[in-house]
Order: sequence, then structure tokens, then C-alpha cells
Amino acid sequence: MTSTKIKHALPVKRSEDFAQWYQAVIAEAELAEESGVRGCMVIKPWGYGIWERIQKLMDERIKAAGVDNCYFPLFIPLSFFAREADHVDGFAKEMAVVTHHRLIADPERGLIPDPEAKLEEPLVVRPTSETVIGAAMARWIQSWRDLPLLTNQWANVVRWEMRTRMFLRTSEFLWQEGHTAHADEADAMTETLRALEMYRSFAEDVLALPVVAGPKPENERFPGAVATYSIEAMMQDGKALQAGTSHYLGTTFAEAAGIRYQDKEGQQVLCHTTSWGVSTRMIGGVIMTHGDDDGLRTPPQVAPHQIVILPMLRDNDGDEALLAYCEELRKALVSQSVFDEKVRVLLDKRPGKATAKRWGWVKKGVPLVLEIGGRDAENGQVSVVRRDRLWREDGKVDFKGIAREEFLATATSELESIQDALFAEARAWRDERIERGITDLAGLAAYFADDRPMPGWVELGWSRPTGEALDKVVEQLKALKLTIRNTPIDATPPTGTCPFTGEPAVERILVARAY
Amino acid sequence: MTSTKIKHALPVKRSEDFAQWYQAVIAEAELAEESGVRGCMVIKPWGYGIWERIQKLMDERIKAAGVDNCYFPLFIPLSFFAREADHVDGFAKEMAVVTHHRLIADPERGLIPDPEAKLEEPLVVRPTSETVIGAAMARWIQSWRDLPLLTNQWANVVRWEMRTRMFLRTSEFLWQEGHTAHADEADAMTETLRALEMYRSFAEDVLALPVVAGPKPENERFPGAVATYSIEAMMQDGKALQAGTSHYLGTTFAEAAGIRYQDKEGQQVLCHTTSWGVSTRMIGGVIMTHGDDDGLRTPPQVAPHQIVILPMLRDNDGDEALLAYCEELRKALVSQSVFDEKVRVLLDKRPGKATAKRWGWVKKGVPLVLEIGGRDAENGQVSVVRRDRLWREDGKVDFKGIAREEFLATATSELESIQDALFAEARAWRDERIERGITDLAGLAAYFADDRPMPGWVELGWSRPTGEALDKVVEQLKALKLTIRNTPIDATPPTGTCPFTGEPAVERILVARAY
Repeated sequence: MTSTKIKHALPVKRSEDFAQWYQAVIAEAELAEESGVRGCMVIKPWGYGIWERIQKLMDERIKAAGVDNCYFPLFIPLSFFAREADHVDGFAKEMAVVTHHRLIADPERGLIPDPEAKLEEPLVVRPTSETVIGAAMARWIQSWRDLPLLTNQWANVVRWEMRTRMFLRTSEFLWQEGHTAHADEADAMTETLRALEMYRSFAEDVLALPVVAGPKPENERFPGAVATYSIEAMMQDGKALQAGTSHYLGTTFAEAAGIRYQDKEGQQVLCHTTSWGVSTRMIGGVIMTHGDDDGLRTPPQVAPHQIVILPMLRDNDGDEALLAYCEELRKALVSQSVFDEKVRVLLDKRPGKATAKRWGWVKKGVPLVLEIGGRDAENGQVSVVRRDRLWREDGKVDFKGIAREEFLATATSELESIQDALFAEARAWRDERIERGITDLAGLAAYFADDRPMPGWVELGWSRPTGEALDKVVEQLKALKLTIRNTPIDATPPTGTCPFTGEPAVERILVARAY
Repeated sequence: MTSTKIKHALPVKRSEDFAQWYQAVIAEAELAEESGVRGCMVIKPWGYGIWERIQKLMDERIKAAGVDNCYFPLFIPLSFFAREADHVDGFAKEMAVVTHHRLIADPERGLIPDPEAKLEEPLVVRPTSETVIGAAMARWIQSWRDLPLLTNQWANVVRWEMRTRMFLRTSEFLWQEGHTAHADEADAMTETLRALEMYRSFAEDVLALPVVAGPKPENERFPGAVATYSIEAMMQDGKALQAGTSHYLGTTFAEAAGIRYQDKEGQQVLCHTTSWGVSTRMIGGVIMTHGDDDGLRTPPQVAPHQIVILPMLRDNDGDEALLAYCEELRKALVSQSVFDEKVRVLLDKRPGKATAKRWGWVKKGVPLVLEIGGRDAENGQVSVVRRDRLWREDGKVDFKGIAREEFLATATSELESIQDALFAEARAWRDERIERGITDLAGLAAYFADDRPMPGWVELGWSRPTGEALDKVVEQLKALKLTIRNTPIDATPPTGTCPFTGEPAVERILVARAY
């Protein structure tokens, strides 16, 4: 792609201004928009369609693990929060609080919360549901026979964010939160790691996002957790995105909520609990991993439409035969399966020029776009372009004319190939940008120097300091705008000394700028 | 079922105390429970599983009608509400209001809303989303080419109810809300009636709930609507349950939010909008229509498990062969389809006695329950009971021993038969309880006299009074604890005079006690 003729579909390129580019993709692909309500977005059909695909495919995995979906209240009484001190410290700064249950019209001020309808106990809009689900678990669990208790909910949660960015950090977002209770640490840890592995494989196999899975250092743990694991994906600006977390909560929440069981010897024992979640943030990760200067490239597994057929209508007598040809093509495609589901195909019959409509679908990232003219219909051909290979060297869109039968015979393998290509491309790109040769702070500072616009990640050995020694490391990293992302599970053992403490390195950590 | 030997699974019968019985079904079938948060319930796996089935099957119908799912904010600024006066009057009495965005720990009072973090403009937790979706529509619609705009969302909403009852009236509930914008009244009314018919057929074909569809009188309209249509189902205590509504909103909300389009002549014209919704309330309708003195009878189309296989394990060497037989049976069943989906089967291998587990599934209303003993396995048999025909005349559970092959050949038609039987039974029961012969107020009062514990509905002709004349009718009915449910679309034309006004009757209305 050396041609200078290529005229990209977005008003701004990734290399020019990544943040602006991100907003442009969201706008031009019609994924979401600001709602007029502070920090809350409207998720539009294409964005919500991707979320529905994520929900469906993740829910299958959650159910296959024997987890039952439930629904718990949106509101959490203040007293529930007060029970777990670390947890409330971690969340108290950013919660929406309901204090009244009625409005009245004031002659001067218009509608106001009715002072007569003040709640005795304010209610918090859930930022996460450990406390309220813990209270239910305490009711549901009596005996060892009730364990493990495996629950999940798909819900909206609210965290009052000061700086918001669509999909990545919004005051309200959609997610699933799994909550489980176990007889002992071993069983709870097995579940924590099962969820982590579910997220890793989901990110890689479904979203084509290569991720690094591992435990977080203690300063980055979920409020109240004993251990927090994450999957981290590299965006095209080199920053890390935490795309899912799984927490081993020890007996912290069990103690606060009184989740106990009678063991086989008749003793009352505290449960060990876990929680794990992924959210609409994943869509932000898909955009910043697979987007290009023409918009989004949606992985076929989560594309609401995998194939769009655009008839080049001419408002004349030939249209009828053309539409019949396209409809017949659509039917032949939807009868096929890919990724164990029926192929999702849209025949776009809306009025308007086919080329204008084409760019709409290119920006949304439909994996295969077909343009069908009257001559294609007569000759039994289709004209097709892969979204991941949009341009020819000469700067023209790489439409290929092939026989209808050949297209029908290869369409599903093309979709699989696009899914694989997106993953391979993202992985190769990321792997090139993980620097493993840095051994001191000066090297770290040089790698992340401000005149290097899109650095990647640094993986380095450290001595795993704790407490105040860790605080010092965190401060040193903060000065470079860096955080420790996690300790990659599959990293090679470290050699040498820790650049922060000078002590022997015992494990390797990922250091990066992050969303 | 004349035998007195029958020992029912619930602690209370419908005929003894219907309200208590309703609570007992919810508890014993593990559908939901009180959460400890005022007016909010926890929906447990079996209840949520039914909701997931409703979501899936309704969502298919919504998508088939060309409606796009989106997601809009949970919070609505007060100013959005102030724009539509009738609407806010209708909802203002029962809304949760967020006034603060942070908690702090007060040394004396513990956690309190931070006085420094008071919102400039309070936010209302959505009771319904006409206002915030209207604002989006105003952004999205420019030209006649953008119409109709068809959107839907699956969401939680909050209405601060003083008296709550699980599924029927809870402060938070789950629903779908469709919102559409059209070029003119005719197109909007077509959509209003399409949604109504979608709800009618869904209630009857999927939930096996016979319903009466029709417009509501003006006093029962949705706040701000020009016309409100409902589907009404008869519960086993004779009361009506409004199970879904569809509203033609005229230009009321378009005016408030500025939803305008440029027509083909270049004029700016107000859109006509609609909204329509069904909620978790439908599950209350399923319980009160199909429940019996042994718990719920879940219609096969929405049963999370349609068939449960219970191996009668004996903790001995024979268990392995028995489990293998059951697993083979499960596989043979899940490879079959019914209602255009794979059959949903659970092999319940949990420890515990099969008969105890059987009653758990009976209370949940699994359509077909199989108990398989070692001898069944040896002889290639199964022992099966239909939940809708639980008892033999002699008071024993009506298990039938049939050959495995015969069961496999008839299982899906049995499920279809149960679905049909539940509907036929409910319809016959309801049809017997719609009284059409009453022509005066004395007759109405006598029919609904308090010593008649479970009356049905009265359909009668009236003169369709409006304004103050209607207010008078509403008052007269209120004295009898009655409301007008709707004007059945398919009622026969009335004869005679209106019992309220003495004028000639022009249409027939349904009068009933209601939830």
C-alpha cells in the first residue's frame, strides 16, 4: 500500500491524532454518540449489535461452565456498603446516590426533588454487586451441598467518572458480573482462573484481540480482593487496555455479608468468593485494535452482518431481475454456516447510490461487501471486497469479480480467513512492540520518552516488592505516566536484578501506559 | 381428579388464599425473592431463565419487524421531563432521583452523600424513556428518507411503587421498550397496531395466555399518549392483568423534543411517534394463569428445561450403567427440535433422592419429568409424567412406563401438546368467565358482589362518554373496585343503552378488577 492515491474514509488518520481518530470511528461507524446526559452514551444499532454478539457468545461460555444467570437489584442501600470497608473506600468516590423518590413542581424553581419524599436510607446505584449478591448468597447457602454457588448477571452499572470516553470509561456501562461462592481457597482459585481463561480465549478467538493474562500487583487489586487477574490488550497507540478482570476475594466479602456453610463435620465455615466481569469496554478494544483509517474492521464472529449485498440499482426495468438475483444470493448464503452459526447477511435495498452505501458499510467494518450490477447478474458473477484488504496498490478499492458459484463455495472460508487474519495481524503488531531488553530505569524512561509517539510495552523482571517498597515503585512509574499491567502467566523466568530495588528479580511484569 | 388422596406440593391452595398461593409459587418454584432493597426483587435462575426465553423469542419478533436494538441512558435530566407536562404529571409521583455523585464517611453518621458533590441538575432514574429517546430521534431524523425510525431497548426501569408485589409491581423491573417515529398518523398507527398484534400473538402462542386486545378509554391512557392499546389476560382469581401496551403518541413527544423531518416538498414537519412495551410482569401472568396447587406449570416454549431426566441413583455399582443410559437418552433428545429450536433437556445428576428432586421440578413446572430406575435402563424403558396431567384418579402421580423408542418418537409432539393444552385450558376457563348479559349497574354490582370470591369479567355496551361524563363513570366503577380494561377489538357490536349514561351503546368495553 504505497500508493498516494488512497483517499481514506475517515477525516483523521490514526497516525495524526489517535484520540481524534477513535472518536471519528465511533461517529462514522455509527457505533455510539453522546447522549446529552453527563458521561452516558447512546449505543447505536451497529455498536449495540456488536454487544449483542458479545453477550450471546460469552453467555454460552458462562452457561457451559454451569453458571446460572440471575438478576439483582440496581439499588444498594448504604448500609450494605458500610459492611466492607476496603470495598467502599475503593468505590466511594464515584457513586450515584438516590436520595428522593418523588419530584414536585415548585412555583419558582420548576421540577425539584420533593423534600417530603426523602429516603430514610439513601440508595447507591450499583457500581458492582458484590455486596448485594453477597447478601443473597448468605440466604442461599446453608450446607456444603449448596457449593459451589455459581451466579452471573448481565446488567448496567454506574461509576461516576470525571473524565469519560465512549466505551472505555462511561458513567453508565453494560457488563456481565459473575459471582461465585466456594468451600475453600483452592476451589475459588480454580474458578477465578477458569473465568480468566474464558476471557483470554474469548478475547483471542472471538474478538481477535491478542491479550496477556496474569495477576495484577497488589496496588492494582479490586477493592477488597485478595488477588486480581486481568487480560491486557495492546491498542494501536501502544497503550494497554484492561479488557476483563477476575478476582479471588478470599473471605473478605463472605465475612462482611455472613456467607457461611456447614461443612461435612457440622462446623460453620466462611465461604471463599470470586467475581469476574467484562463490559462494553471490550468494544473500545475492538475499535482501537482493528480499526484503520477507513473506520472499523469488525471481526466476523461479532459482526452484526458478516456480508452485505449492495445491488447497484438504476431505477429502471433491470432492477427487478437484479434484486431477484441478489435475493437468491442472500438465500444461498444464509443457508450456510460459519463459526457454528448461520451466516448473517444483509441485502441493502435502501434507496441511494451503491457507492455511498458501500462507504457506510466499509466504515462499519462489514467483513465482506458485495456490489452487484446488472451485468454481474446476467453473467452469474459477484464483485466482492474483503474489508481487511480494502485497497489495491493503485489506490482503488480491491473489488474482485468472481463467479457466483465460486463465491458461494468460498464465502464461509473467507470469513474464517478474515477472523484469523485480524488476529494474526494484531498479534504480530503487538509482539513487535513488547520490549524485553530493558534492565534499568534509565532505559525505561528512554523507551517511554515523550517524543516517541506510540511506544509499546516493556516486560521486565522485578523483585515483587510489597507495602511501602511497592508504593515507591508505583510513584517512580507514575512519574513516567506508567503502570504495572500484570505479571504475564506465560512469561519466561527473569534473570538479573530488579531495576527498582536492586534485589534479584523473581518474576516478570508488564509496564505500560494504559487506558 | 376427585380423589382426596392428592397431597399437593404447595402449602396453600389457590382456592384458599390466592395472594398467599401466588407468593408460595414464587418461593417454592424458586422464581424470585425479596432482596432486602425496598420494592426490588432478586430474580433467581428459574425465573430469570423464563425471562431469557421471553427475551429471545420477543427479540426475534422485534427484529423481524425491522426494529433496531439500541441502548439509551439510565439517567434522565430533570429538564428533559419538564418538556412534556402531561407526561411528567403522570410519572412525577413515583421516580427515583439521583442528587449526589459521591459518598463520604461522616465521623458521626457514617457514610453519607457528600454535600460537596451535589449534582447541579438532579437526574431521574428512567421510569420509561420517551423523553431521552425523543432527544436522540431529534438528532437522528432530518429527512423523510430517515423515516420510519424504529428502535427498541431491553432495559431496567424504576417506578417508585408504594405497594409492591413480585413480578407484578416492583420498583425496578426489566422490560423492552420500542420507540418509533413516522411521517404521519397513518404510518404511526399501523406500527402501534403491529406491536399490539405482536404482543397478542406472543402472549397466546408463546406464553399460552389468552388475551383480549383493544384500545383503553381515555382515562387509562399512558401519560401524554393520544391512544393506548393493551392486551388483558384473566388470572385464576378472575382479575385482569395488563400484560402489554402499545401507544400512539401523536405529535406530543415530537413537539416536546423537536422531532421534525423535511418532507418531499421541503417543509419541516413534526413526526408522529409510538412506544410499546412488555415487562417481567408477564411472568406474573404466566404464574397466575398456569400455576396450580403443585406450583408452576411452565409453558414448554418458555421453560428453561423442557425435559428433566432424574436417574434414581442408589450409590451402588448399577449407577454407572444407569447414568450412561440417561446420558444417551439426553443426547437423543437434544438432537431433536421443537418449536424450531433444539429440545432443552437437563440430566439432573445432583446428589439426593430422586423423588425429592422430582418435587422440585414439579414445583418449577418442567413440562416433562422422567424418572429412570435401574430396571428401566435394563428394559429400555422410561417413566414419564406430563406436568399438566400430574395426578391419576387414585391420587398417585401419573407416571407412565413406555418404551424408550416410543418416548423418543413422541417427546416433541408431547411438548407441543402440553403447550396447546395449557392454552386451551386457560382459554376455556376464561371464556366461561366473561359475562356478556349484564345491562345495568345493579347487575354489575351483583356480579362483583364481595361474597363472590372469584368473579370474572363483564363485557358490556356503553356510549363512550368523554371528559366529565367519563369521570363520573370511572367514579361509579371505582366504588365497585372496578376499572375499564379496554374495548375489545373483536367484540360484537353492542345493542341497547349504556348503563352509565342511558344513551345508545356504541361499543363494548371490558370491566374487571385488575392487578
